[in-house]
Amino acid sequence: MNGARALLSTLVGAGVDVCFANPGTSEMHFVAGLDDVPSPRGVLCLFEGVVTGAADGYARVAGRPAATLLHLGPGLGNGLANLHNARRARTPIVNIVGDHATYHARYDAPLESDIASIARPVSGWYRSSARADDVAGDAADAVAASMGPPGCVATLVLPADSSWSESATGPCAPRPQARAATVPADTVEEVAKALRSGERAALLLGGSALRAPGLHAASRAAVRAGAALLGETFPVNLERGAGIPAVERLGYFSEMAQAQLDGVRHLVLVDVKSPVSFFAYPGKASDLVPPGCTVHTLARPGEDAAGALEALAEVLDAPAEGAEPAAAGRPDRPAGPLSAETLAAAIGATLPEGAIVADEGNTSGLLVAAATAGAPRHDWLTLTGGAIGIGLPMATGAAVAAPDRPVLCLQADGSAMYTLQALWTQAREGLNVTTVILSNRSYAILNIELHRVGADAGGPLARRLLDLSDPDIGFCDLARGMGVPARQVESAEELVGALESGFAEAGPTLIEVRL
Amino acid sequence: MNGARALLSTLVGAGVDVCFANPGTSEMHFVAGLDDVPSPRGVLCLFEGVVTGAADGYARVAGRPAATLLHLGPGLGNGLANLHNARRARTPIVNIVGDHATYHARYDAPLESDIASIARPVSGWYRSSARADDVAGDAADAVAASMGPPGCVATLVLPADSSWSESATGPCAPRPQARAATVPADTVEEVAKALRSGERAALLLGGSALRAPGLHAASRAAVRAGAALLGETFPVNLERGAGIPAVERLGYFSEMAQAQLDGVRHLVLVDVKSPVSFFAYPGKASDLVPPGCTVHTLARPGEDAAGALEALAEVLDAPAEGAEPAAAGRPDRPAGPLSAETLAAAIGATLPEGAIVADEGNTSGLLVAAATAGAPRHDWLTLTGGAIGIGLPMATGAAVAAPDRPVLCLQADGSAMYTLQALWTQAREGLNVTTVILSNRSYAILNIELHRVGADAGGPLARRLLDLSDPDIGFCDLARGMGVPARQVESAEELVGALESGFAEAGPTLIEVRL
Repeated sequence: MNGARALLSTLVGAGVDVCFANPGTSEMHFVAGLDDVPSPRGVLCLFEGVVTGAADGYARVAGRPAATLLHLGPGLGNGLANLHNARRARTPIVNIVGDHATYHARYDAPLESDIASIARPVSGWYRSSARADDVAGDAADAVAASMGPPGCVATLVLPADSSWSESATGPCAPRPQARAATVPADTVEEVAKALRSGERAALLLGGSALRAPGLHAASRAAVRAGAALLGETFPVNLERGAGIPAVERLGYFSEMAQAQLDGVRHLVLVDVKSPVSFFAYPGKASDLVPPGCTVHTLARPGEDAAGALEALAEVLDAPAEGAEPAAAGRPDRPAGPLSAETLAAAIGATLPEGAIVADEGNTSGLLVAAATAGAPRHDWLTLTGGAIGIGLPMATGAAVAAPDRPVLCLQADGSAMYTLQALWTQAREGLNVTTVILSNRSYAILNIELHRVGADAGGPLARRLLDLSDPDIGFCDLARGMGVPARQVESAEELVGALESGFAEAGPTLIEVRL
Repeated sequence: MNGARALLSTLVGAGVDVCFANPGTSEMHFVAGLDDVPSPRGVLCLFEGVVTGAADGYARVAGRPAATLLHLGPGLGNGLANLHNARRARTPIVNIVGDHATYHARYDAPLESDIASIARPVSGWYRSSARADDVAGDAADAVAASMGPPGCVATLVLPADSSWSESATGPCAPRPQARAATVPADTVEEVAKALRSGERAALLLGGSALRAPGLHAASRAAVRAGAALLGETFPVNLERGAGIPAVERLGYFSEMAQAQLDGVRHLVLVDVKSPVSFFAYPGKASDLVPPGCTVHTLARPGEDAAGALEALAEVLDAPAEGAEPAAAGRPDRPAGPLSAETLAAAIGATLPEGAIVADEGNTSGLLVAAATAGAPRHDWLTLTGGAIGIGLPMATGAAVAAPDRPVLCLQADGSAMYTLQALWTQAREGLNVTTVILSNRSYAILNIELHRVGADAGGPLARRLLDLSDPDIGFCDLARGMGVPARQVESAEELVGALESGFAEAGPTLIEVRL
């Protein structure tokens, strides 16, 4: 068996059974091996940003990595933005980058480039397999490294000759998987002491703490201690809805976050970094921890956050039934003109049990979270690293991971245009994704930011660089061009109907909402 | 004036009067400055791969750099593939990457990343402006560095505070521009001696040698010496057509190139690297120089190639009228079904005087070069670095550089899907681009490569990763969704008519040709 087949078999043995791929010549032996059993399922994406965003969405839902297949440095470059988001989400990804044959590198052929330099900023682990005999072991290491904890992008570079040459070793057994470290009792004790101080306190949850077990324990502790329960601004995969304790997500704009944290004397971090401003602004703070506030770390990324919260609740003598789950409740079905309010109500009124929401709604989707707070329980995936163009790919990967669950993609128009090719993969794979394009014909966030950074408003030439009209983008045409049925809705009633059809029917659909 | 305005003014002063942009928050002061006079013209692109590919196409035609405007590491990542192509083309680009404020970096905010590591593989020059007072001088250095010669991508990182803070220096005057070095007389003499040896010889031209002056001089020398006249496989901007001496481009597949070079004892390189195989294949050579052949370098990149060829012709006593210009001649207007042959004939029959061809036609366009050899003189731009997704952006940039010339974009379907967003910019700017989508519903090159690398043919799962049907891509829908009028043609006659309309009418159009 050649190196490529040893790799494919090793991946499957380690539980990596999907490979999002955009291959080129140097990856042909990998591709040729896909018909062998066992091999991961190959999912073709027409652009590498779709590959990497789908791998992110897949792992956030599946809880285990997918593989990617990218073509040399430029293919990696095309996938870099969503790998950046995955890095921030601590998503496990086995990021396979095909390379020239080792002996070919010195000829500096046109596609030769410094893959390591491009990969390192997004990779928690990096290795190039110098020989076919190394490939399987390297792949087993890559899978284990990607899983952490915490998870990371593990980049495995696969030279073409390591792929096509005979592997004497064959496949490699999975490496033992590390488990999340238990938080020491004295750390829990120290946090409990701060919470018992009577001073104003807040728990800030991120990462794995935002799943139901962590949320229940955190809610018990917070209620018992009279502390606020906050969530990070951009969760990896937030479990929410009726029956799950809700967190108040920290605001995107620093003024909002500062207001939420105002007066807090003890801020307890749980699998999350200390809050900082997303961007810098003239004369505004970067560090959002209020003056006089002590920051305590209950659990660092890679530690057992839910276990630590459970221990904290116990130490605080919080009653077992002391959590405050969100009450069930949906908004009425809206009627009348489309607006941010009726959009939010339409989603709140229809979101099905077990839905996965891939949220890149940006400015147009701000009211949707409140309107869905009491909907049946669902998962909420967001843009973790600020590199726009993740919504459609993330929804694609989530739907591959959970084919029986409805996926709702809330997608701002400007961001949609970065990785629109994801729609084609949704059509090919028949994925249950309902995409709602929130079309305001503008990089609306930048119009806000233009003022916030202190720049004067700019003249017509500046505003034209933030404007997406002239020409308007016809998302229904774009969707149909990639095989996804689409309709533009003109009223809240039509939107409700389109959402219900989208959730009920198999396969992808796209709904354009002009706001 | 702030750093951003000092930068904009410096750019214009140095002749950089177009900026292809996809800005974010950290670039808002730059954007706000665009209404000041003087400032470059801002051209909005909806994805960074369009920004960088357009900057490449612009400079190949204008002969001077455009600026880009990208948003931090992820925005740079999205633009990396076409910067890779620009690096291989030695295209001058002033690649401006906005960054967080300098003091914000240590907070590791979500969009923080190692921009230098991402940029270096494509950048011939790199600098981050640490203070507002540095920005203008750094920009002047960047423009000069980008121009070389040889040209390069000069990456200037612009932290937000360097942009918004007051610049005490104001704009900076342009740096003196270096000129291409003259090739020493003894180098010319040595090449002349080899050409006079009576042994089989070939001139291989690349880069700047493929413009009319170099081609005329090379043709004189080659005719006089009885040498073959070859051109690099993927020219930056090849001038060709009636009245211009033709070169035979070296084949993409190594077997083809080896056949062309078979028996050559003296290979003379003129602004080009020694020929190597694009990819490595089991058991096939990487170095394509035939055994027993001596390689001579007449002009290196950055040297005056046309001048060296002129000197060579003189030393060889080649007659002033000794060049062999291509004869005028067009194929007849084709009729009947669409095929690779009738496609090529339709283009050959209609290509207007002064056209610019942005060629990413790949496998479907192989016959077009022969069919246009005697067409009125025109420019031919190709994919220099192998990173697909350059055709539509390159055509966009070329049309911005030469608004009065017709631009023909020959675009393979698979590659089109990487940077399709370029169509929107063509519509907004009313650019005279006629795009012909060569749709074969396949990564056809990879089906060939699958066999060439020695992989067995692969089963249905492998072939499905190279197949672009299921669903078919509707390029007319995609174009209309971005405001570009489009039609699918069903016969050679229809194609001829559509091409003639496209060339004659103002603004962009797209023609889908299913092969």
